[in-house]
Amino acid sequence: MEIIQVDERISLRRDPETGNEDTQAIVDEIIAAIRKDGDEALRAYTKKLDGAELDALFVTETERLKAYEALDDTVISALQQAIINIRDFHERQRSQSWMTTKEDGTMLGQQVTPLDAVGVYVPGGKAAYPSTILMDVIPAQVANVGQIIMTSPPDTSGLLHPAVVVAASELGVEQIVKAGGAQAIAALAYGTESVPAVDKIVGPGNSFVALAKRAVYGHVDIDMIAGPSEIVVIADDTARADYVAADLLSQAEHEERATAIVVTPSKPLADKVVEEVDRQLEDLPRAAIARKALDDYGAIYLTANMNQAVDVVNQLAPEHVEVLVAEPFHYLGKIRHAGAIFLGENSAETVGDYFAGTNHVLPTNGTARFSSPLTVDDFIKKSSIIHYSREALETNAKMIASLARVEGFEAHARAVEIRKKGASEHE
Amino acid sequence: MEIIQVDERISLRRDPETGNEDTQAIVDEIIAAIRKDGDEALRAYTKKLDGAELDALFVTETERLKAYEALDDTVISALQQAIINIRDFHERQRSQSWMTTKEDGTMLGQQVTPLDAVGVYVPGGKAAYPSTILMDVIPAQVANVGQIIMTSPPDTSGLLHPAVVVAASELGVEQIVKAGGAQAIAALAYGTESVPAVDKIVGPGNSFVALAKRAVYGHVDIDMIAGPSEIVVIADDTARADYVAADLLSQAEHEERATAIVVTPSKPLADKVVEEVDRQLEDLPRAAIARKALDDYGAIYLTANMNQAVDVVNQLAPEHVEVLVAEPFHYLGKIRHAGAIFLGENSAETVGDYFAGTNHVLPTNGTARFSSPLTVDDFIKKSSIIHYSREALETNAKMIASLARVEGFEAHARAVEIRKKGASEHE
Repeated sequence: MEIIQVDERISLRRDPETGNEDTQAIVDEIIAAIRKDGDEALRAYTKKLDGAELDALFVTETERLKAYEALDDTVISALQQAIINIRDFHERQRSQSWMTTKEDGTMLGQQVTPLDAVGVYVPGGKAAYPSTILMDVIPAQVANVGQIIMTSPPDTSGLLHPAVVVAASELGVEQIVKAGGAQAIAALAYGTESVPAVDKIVGPGNSFVALAKRAVYGHVDIDMIAGPSEIVVIADDTARADYVAADLLSQAEHEERATAIVVTPSKPLADKVVEEVDRQLEDLPRAAIARKALDDYGAIYLTANMNQAVDVVNQLAPEHVEVLVAEPFHYLGKIRHAGAIFLGENSAETVGDYFAGTNHVLPTNGTARFSSPLTVDDFIKKSSIIHYSREALETNAKMIASLARVEGFEAHARAVEIRKKGASEHE
Repeated sequence: MEIIQVDERISLRRDPETGNEDTQAIVDEIIAAIRKDGDEALRAYTKKLDGAELDALFVTETERLKAYEALDDTVISALQQAIINIRDFHERQRSQSWMTTKEDGTMLGQQVTPLDAVGVYVPGGKAAYPSTILMDVIPAQVANVGQIIMTSPPDTSGLLHPAVVVAASELGVEQIVKAGGAQAIAALAYGTESVPAVDKIVGPGNSFVALAKRAVYGHVDIDMIAGPSEIVVIADDTARADYVAADLLSQAEHEERATAIVVTPSKPLADKVVEEVDRQLEDLPRAAIARKALDDYGAIYLTANMNQAVDVVNQLAPEHVEVLVAEPFHYLGKIRHAGAIFLGENSAETVGDYFAGTNHVLPTNGTARFSSPLTVDDFIKKSSIIHYSREALETNAKMIASLARVEGFEAHARAVEIRKKGASEHE
């Protein structure tokens, strides 16, 4: 890892991966096929792309039982406790409908309603991501979404990873579709004979999934197109280099495009972190990936002091920030742009990725300047409520009509004036 | 207007206007020019496209004074009262940062921070839309956005409409850029020597503005690409046909693509509405536009009963719904998908468009199924906060590590375990 003296504005922003034209053409073709042929096309693509010939499109009761048998008990207990923690945190995000009244009879308000149906995409292949299921499904459940349909690509024998099936089962997800890629996104967006059409699709995926989500966006809502994961560790000379290094590596092992950065005014710490990273890389299973990520996107930025370190964080607006300093809470209010802020030496990012209760779906690529973690609010929508009394209308008709006319909308003005006239006829 | 018996699902959805390839090429060229040449390009395009040679890019103090002199006092008072109403409503939407603590020392929370800078686009040309300014600027101000930059195309003499300047001045907007179209959007997204770069751009515009917003989306946030405006009036046989007709026309006069629909179980009302529409069209200034809109997109749907009428509204998920029935509040909870719901015969849509206090920036084209009116929340973002104590880490380390390992992320597990080990060293 390189140690760099900060002397100008720095940025994490990279051009989003858009895939090439060939990928786009394939995605468009898949979406069109699913819209036309529904389940038949979904099965055909699952056979062609995942190598699985399915009996049932949905995970069966037998498969659920086998998944529980196959999974380690510690993992099952950990999933259960994580669910409790994540549900507890997200329940505090619930929005209520509200109303306000005035003496003239006016009532104004905001009605909150959950989405009717949501699709949750869970990546498959050789890896299993049960934490994705928890983070995407729980806020939707807390929001009281009517129907949650999960979808994930099966292995060649037509099965999902036991951890995926158990996580979904622990949450009570009833419909798990064994399909992945653009074909799964298209099925969720437009519906098939057996997959219900949804209003919003959430969850990460490869470039086919990302392009398909982009293509159906507008017809349905989507969460975001996530970029590579990022961590920025702010540390002072009280920070332990072995903790800092471990956290950089936990980010860097995700993928070769992941970003892991330290910002510190302490040159001794910087030197020790470089050493520690090398030492800890030695026996890391995914060392090759982590090393490449650190070479390409890793850095240790040396600042003049802690205030400049915080400035750098705000410039970067990273997905994750760890504050490993003597008084971490002192800096909380100064951090304006970050997806998640981990305070103090025991708050490893891993704690939030899996367990603490906050959501791990976070803005990347500098979008924390204007975006938020996934919340319950992403699964509800609001309607404005307006009730005007005859008195309120009569009192304000002249002003309202004058605003309509200055914009050149005579019919708008008349819609108010006809009521003022109508009201006087009532008397 | 045609009267249609409802017998199947109906939809408002239309393909979004994307503009043709020529428009896209022009927009791309404009954005590139602004990024390259900044203010110089902004002035050049304003001369070329708006026919205005500007001395100052920003509205001056003298121009503000002249705008107040030129504007009718009734309109100024109406703007002032509308501002009070809109601010009062939006202040009720404010979100607070919050924290929750556990006995083991865990602290989790959600920090709310306003966006640093927001751009508000206000359409110009011959018409003036001061209400747009109120609806876009007030929620940003209530959110405590650091910097609000407004932009609107000038007329050929280099001036903005007095109502636009007065509305902005009443709100205390200090920076009003005299530029429009794709060049204004590019200036806001990327900044020029004199226009600050913003984090989010809100406000409606023509197809050049819409394409430019779509192009800069991701680099900055945008509100939405709004479709044509829509109203659905649910009415029973107690509704006054002249009110219903007036409200349909207030929607239809917007543009030829506007949608105005009545849903009613009452055939006599339907017949009377058709007559009233024709009568009121006779002396309407924008009759040609309204007539075309009603011919192409207007309809009166006859239903078997009120419940079916509400079903139709939920299928349509319209921007505006008016409930002109004997007991309007009875139906509020049944309406699940709508941008704004106007209850009772005195609650003309015009009241909400300009004055009552709710926002008139609303989801169109069926997106009320998953989208909301513009709110204060659109100008803030959240950061998750995680603080784990040594006790919390030690208690949960085993479970957290097991979840990381089931996903194949060994470095994630080690980042927790190294701390457990580190903690025992402290003792």
